[in-house]
Parts: sequence; structure tokens; C-alpha cells
Amino acid sequence: MMKNISILGSTGSIGTNALDVVAGFPDRFQVKALTAKSNIALLAEQIKKFSPAVAVVYDEEGAQRLEDMLPEDTAVGIHYGDEGYRIAATLPEVHTVLTAMVGAAGLKPTVAAIRAGKTIALANKETLVMAGELVMKMAADHGVDILPVDSEHSAIFQCLQGNRREDLKRLIITASGGPFFKRDPRTFDTIQPSDALKHPNWQMGSKITIDSATLMNKGLEVIEAKHLFGVDLSMIDVVVHPQSIIHSMVAYRDGSIMAQLGVPDMKSAIALALSHPERLPLGQPLPDFSAIGGFTFAEPDLKTFPCLALAMEACRMGGTVPAAMNAANEIAVAAFLEGGLPFTGISGVIRETMARLGEGGSPSLEAIMAVDRAARLHAAAVIAAL
Amino acid sequence: MMKNISILGSTGSIGTNALDVVAGFPDRFQVKALTAKSNIALLAEQIKKFSPAVAVVYDEEGAQRLEDMLPEDTAVGIHYGDEGYRIAATLPEVHTVLTAMVGAAGLKPTVAAIRAGKTIALANKETLVMAGELVMKMAADHGVDILPVDSEHSAIFQCLQGNRREDLKRLIITASGGPFFKRDPRTFDTIQPSDALKHPNWQMGSKITIDSATLMNKGLEVIEAKHLFGVDLSMIDVVVHPQSIIHSMVAYRDGSIMAQLGVPDMKSAIALALSHPERLPLGQPLPDFSAIGGFTFAEPDLKTFPCLALAMEACRMGGTVPAAMNAANEIAVAAFLEGGLPFTGISGVIRETMARLGEGGSPSLEAIMAVDRAARLHAAAVIAAL
Repeated sequence: MMKNISILGSTGSIGTNALDVVAGFPDRFQVKALTAKSNIALLAEQIKKFSPAVAVVYDEEGAQRLEDMLPEDTAVGIHYGDEGYRIAATLPEVHTVLTAMVGAAGLKPTVAAIRAGKTIALANKETLVMAGELVMKMAADHGVDILPVDSEHSAIFQCLQGNRREDLKRLIITASGGPFFKRDPRTFDTIQPSDALKHPNWQMGSKITIDSATLMNKGLEVIEAKHLFGVDLSMIDVVVHPQSIIHSMVAYRDGSIMAQLGVPDMKSAIALALSHPERLPLGQPLPDFSAIGGFTFAEPDLKTFPCLALAMEACRMGGTVPAAMNAANEIAVAAFLEGGLPFTGISGVIRETMARLGEGGSPSLEAIMAVDRAARLHAAAVIAAL
Repeated sequence: MMKNISILGSTGSIGTNALDVVAGFPDRFQVKALTAKSNIALLAEQIKKFSPAVAVVYDEEGAQRLEDMLPEDTAVGIHYGDEGYRIAATLPEVHTVLTAMVGAAGLKPTVAAIRAGKTIALANKETLVMAGELVMKMAADHGVDILPVDSEHSAIFQCLQGNRREDLKRLIITASGGPFFKRDPRTFDTIQPSDALKHPNWQMGSKITIDSATLMNKGLEVIEAKHLFGVDLSMIDVVVHPQSIIHSMVAYRDGSIMAQLGVPDMKSAIALALSHPERLPLGQPLPDFSAIGGFTFAEPDLKTFPCLALAMEACRMGGTVPAAMNAANEIAVAAFLEGGLPFTGISGVIRETMARLGEGGSPSLEAIMAVDRAARLHAAAVIAAL
């Protein structure tokens, strides 16, 4: 059965992997919309290959550049900006929307897709970090399935299958520990962006790779998991597992733990979110257990990696605090990548922003977006004053 | 909802653990029948505690001894022998029959229970090793569920839940490697029964503990898995995992592997077979991943442990060969435990018996039982001639 899909963020690491999956199963998936921010050249290539009905870029100038790059007879409607992303997220003929935009920008199109009754293949963590309560309620109200694309959440989703909700005891999210798991914390002040961009196991975009180095990524995943699976923060454990073969686990009240394993490659989770309940023959290699030799585990060190502790704290406080935390992190990571903030300064920017912005309660989407904007300005001011 | 159960083999290691589970949930399970072979004293204790309607022992003399041990007003029907075991396996008011008898003796009562339409909680490996094809067909014909109690098969059963059969790629059965995994094979000829009875992770009966030391237990499990899950032998891998935390795994065609983990304790698998699809709050500790430190994996060494290779070979040949192999193993293990056969002699007895007895095809239950009897005689003769 052919499934029509929209890919929001098609030029990023999730988006390109998703298109690899789609290309392998031309009789199952048809791409109806592709969106990008600024990688116009790659988007043009993707349009030529997948012939979507709609393509969207960030602004009018980008739309013009895209049009110039395409052959004249290309039958694609080019749009831009918020309205463009909304169109891509809500196309009537689309069944599943893969939300793979980076950062807070993913929230609004995801909400639009849910309101339009689309199945969501959720790769954009920030949607649930910023507005988890609201988005999950909206999905329930619209009878919409949210299928996780993050390998950890896909693992938990798979470990919950066929089990009764009442029997669930704990979610155990694994973490690679990132590139600095074994590094002496006293040398963290000399970490350069090029060091932090070397992830030991996963090939990903630069924002998420830095988040992996600070363990903020794991903090965002904890918040995402809390909302996606409707559990209390106290039921979520983080365990460092440097081999990244066990992608996450679920513990049940009979003492049984279900785990999902695989080689670290995001295609398997992407494909499952697009094809569930079927599993596609991806031709992925299975882990060779005799060759692996061993799995190791350790507790995360919250003192060396304060970003994880800050995310847990934001999760506990709820309301608009996670949005403030997330916005400050985006600004701080960008500043670090540009050389304007040391690696060890990232957590301070987040802490100072959380101290000033965000409060508990059940905020509206507008309130969340307002805190997001204010937190960005505040974080930038904190960095400028350093 | 109250579930009536029969426990065949209640005084063994599975049986006593099952009664521990049952004792913890008096509002869920009622024991209607208990059977033992010769541990009359323990059976009498169990009858006083669980008040079954029926109790069965091996012979008339045992039945008399049991009666003498019980208070006069005990309302239990005491039976013995094949007819007794059949009664216990087919009591009209019973929903689930736990088949925890040791060895080939488990086959006939299990068949009787299936014919009576009972749900089977299968702990007796030999049932499927000897007559897998026939028993699985019988279960299908009678619409009977067979729920595995062995931790490996329970793990696979759990890893299959919520997944489509078509997506299954491989079963990965883990093995502890037994007490001699690291021992120099050149010293195997000095192994004493007391050495072989020291299993590193599991507390079990003596027959299965020796089978674990020779890796025959893993061979029996491979044959059992082939029938229980209806897969070809070529789809089954054995991986040595000395920590026995991962109880087994299932690989799917998208490269995803589901695994079931837990501390090595048979209660969790027993309870699941009795309460499925519910999981009972057993108060089992979860594995402490930070404390475990690591999992290791290795390929099984078929040269050092020829019994595993013999079982695989019997599985490939099919027909009555697995029954011949199993019978020879039972006789050889008993001889080893009695000091009448060296540890390294076990595989030779099995090999010689398999060379003489058993053939392919789709044998009847009678043919299988005949080969079982003949193989026992042959194996005993081989041992006597040493």
C-alpha cells in the first residue's frame, strides 16, 4: 500500500536518511512535500529525484534561488516561511509527516500537522520538550499517532509493544556518554568545537552532536520520553552505554526488561516510524555479538555534565521552564560553535536563563513561544556580557 | 480472575518456584493437582499448604507412603503411575497445566493435556525435543496455547510480542557457557560430578545442570525453539553470554533486535507463563546496570562442547533422531552423576546411540517412544561396554 509522506527538514541528517529509506521502497512511499531551511542546492537535487508536489524554504530569496536551480518543467509548488511549512505539514493527500526540522522551529508545523490529523513521525525533540503536555493532549484529541524517530524513543516504543501499560515499571534510556565520557573534566575548558563534533558512534547534525557532548541531548530525550510515554520523571533512568548497541529499555513489574538493540544507524528507527506496524527489509547488518565482545554500563556523571541535571530540573518544574532551557541551550550551542562561548560556559548560560525565565503551570502555545523568544534574547545577552 | 492450575513435577526446581509464585497470588491461582516422582515428603508438605484436589506419585508404594504422611481428613485424591499423571494433566476444572517433569517422562502427560484443550506452561523441554512436530500440530489442532517456561524461550516469546511473523529474521539464544566455559579442555577428563553441579548463574536440578555443563541444554533449547516458534534451524544462533542477564533475543529484517533481560531467576518466566498477557508484581530486583559493569559475548566452542553439535545434528536429521539423542543423553548424564562415566564420555555415548538409532521422517508418538526405549537400552549397553 502506497503511503504519502511529507518530510519537514529533508536536507538534515534525519531527512536525508529518510529519503534513503524511501528510495529503497518506491512502491511503498511517495514523497509529497520536502522542506529545508537554507540548503537550497541539496533540496533541488531531492526535488529532481523524488518529484514532490510541494517544496518549502525559509524565505522568498531562497524560494527564488530554488526555482532558478530547477528545470523549467519541474511540477513543484514552491513556498516559503511559516505559511509554507504549514502547507507542507497539512497537505490533504499526506498520511504521515516526518518532522525532522532542527530546534524550536519544528513546533509550529508539527502542531499544524496534528490538527490536520496526520500521523506524526516525530524526529523534532523540541516539539515535546517545549510543549509536551499540550502536544500530547492535542494528538489524543485528534486521534493522531505520534511515532518516535529518535533511536532511544523508538526503542522504548518497540519495548512497549504487546505489553500492558499497567505492568510498566521504568524506562531506561541509554546514553553513549558522548565524546568526553572518559575525558578528564579538568581539561574541559580547552574543548574546541572540532573536538565536540566527533561523536564516537552516531553521524548526526552539529547541534545534536554538541548536545550529545554536553549530555543535554539525553536531558531533552528524558523530557521527550516523559511526555511521549506519559510517565513521571521518577520512572525514567539514564544509563551510560558507550557502545550504543542497546538503544533503550523498558522494565516491567515482574522484573523483566525488554531492550531494543541494533547497530547505531538511524535508518531503522526512521523506517519503523514510516512503516509501522511492518518492519522493512532494510538490509542492515545485525550486530555481531561475538565480535562486539562486550557491552559496558555506567551511571551518568551529573557534576561533570551539568546540562543533563539542568534538563531534569526543567522537566521537574514543567510549564514554560523546558522551553526557556531549550532556547538558552540553542543559543549557547550556536555561540560555542561560532567560537563565542567556551564548552564549559554552555551550562551557565542555560542556568542563568532558567533562573530568569519560565514558570510552572499549563501554558498555552503562545505563552511557550513567547518564553522561547525571550529566553533566546536573554541567553544572547548573558553571552554578550561574558 | 482465579485460574486453576495443575503442576506436573511440583517437587523439582521449576515446581517449587511455581508454588512460590502461586503462594504470592492466592487470589489469582488455585492449585488443583500436584504430581511428583519420588519426593513424597515434600509433596506431602505441598498438599498441606495448597490443598489440591489430586496428587500423583510414581507408584503404588509411593501413594501409600503419601497417604500415611497426610492427616486423615486431607481431602485429596491420590493416584499413581501413567494413569495418575494423565488424570492430573486433564482435570476438567483446570485451565493451565505446568509441565515441569524431568526428561522424557514429561511427553505423555503433556500430550494428554493438549488433547484435553489445556493451556500448556511448558517447562519440559523433552516434549518438543522428542516430538516437536507432532506436539505443535496437535496444539494447533486443539487450539491450545503453549507458553514457554524456559527463560530463553520465554525471552523469545516476549521479543516476538507485538511483532509480525513475516518480519522475523533470526532467533538468538544466549548461553551462560556453563561452569567450564573458561576451563582448559585438556583438563576435562578430571571433571567430577560435584564440579559440574556448580552452575555459575542458575540454581536448577542436577540433570539440567549437567546438561548446562556439556552445553547439551543449549542444544535441547535450540530444538525446542525450532518447533515452538516454527523456524528453520538455520535461523537460530547460539551466543555465549556468561552473565546470563540477556535471556535471549529476536532479530528482525529491519536490523532491529529485541532482547529480554532480567536477573537469573526462573520465577519471572514461570509467572508469565501462568499469568500471560499480564505481568505479575513479583518484587524481583531489576538488574543494576551500573553495578553489572559489562556484558560479554562469545561464540560457543563446538569442539570443546560436542554435545551442542550433536544436538544440532539431531535437529537437522529430525524424525526420531532427537528422541534417540535425548534418551542417550539422559542415560549418559545419570551414569556420569553416579560415577560410572567420565564427563568427556557423555558425548561419545550419545554419538554411538545416534549412529545406531533414530531416522528421519514424521514418526508417530508410538514410534518416538519406541526409539526412546531402545536408545536407553543401547546407551546403557555402550556405557557397560566401556
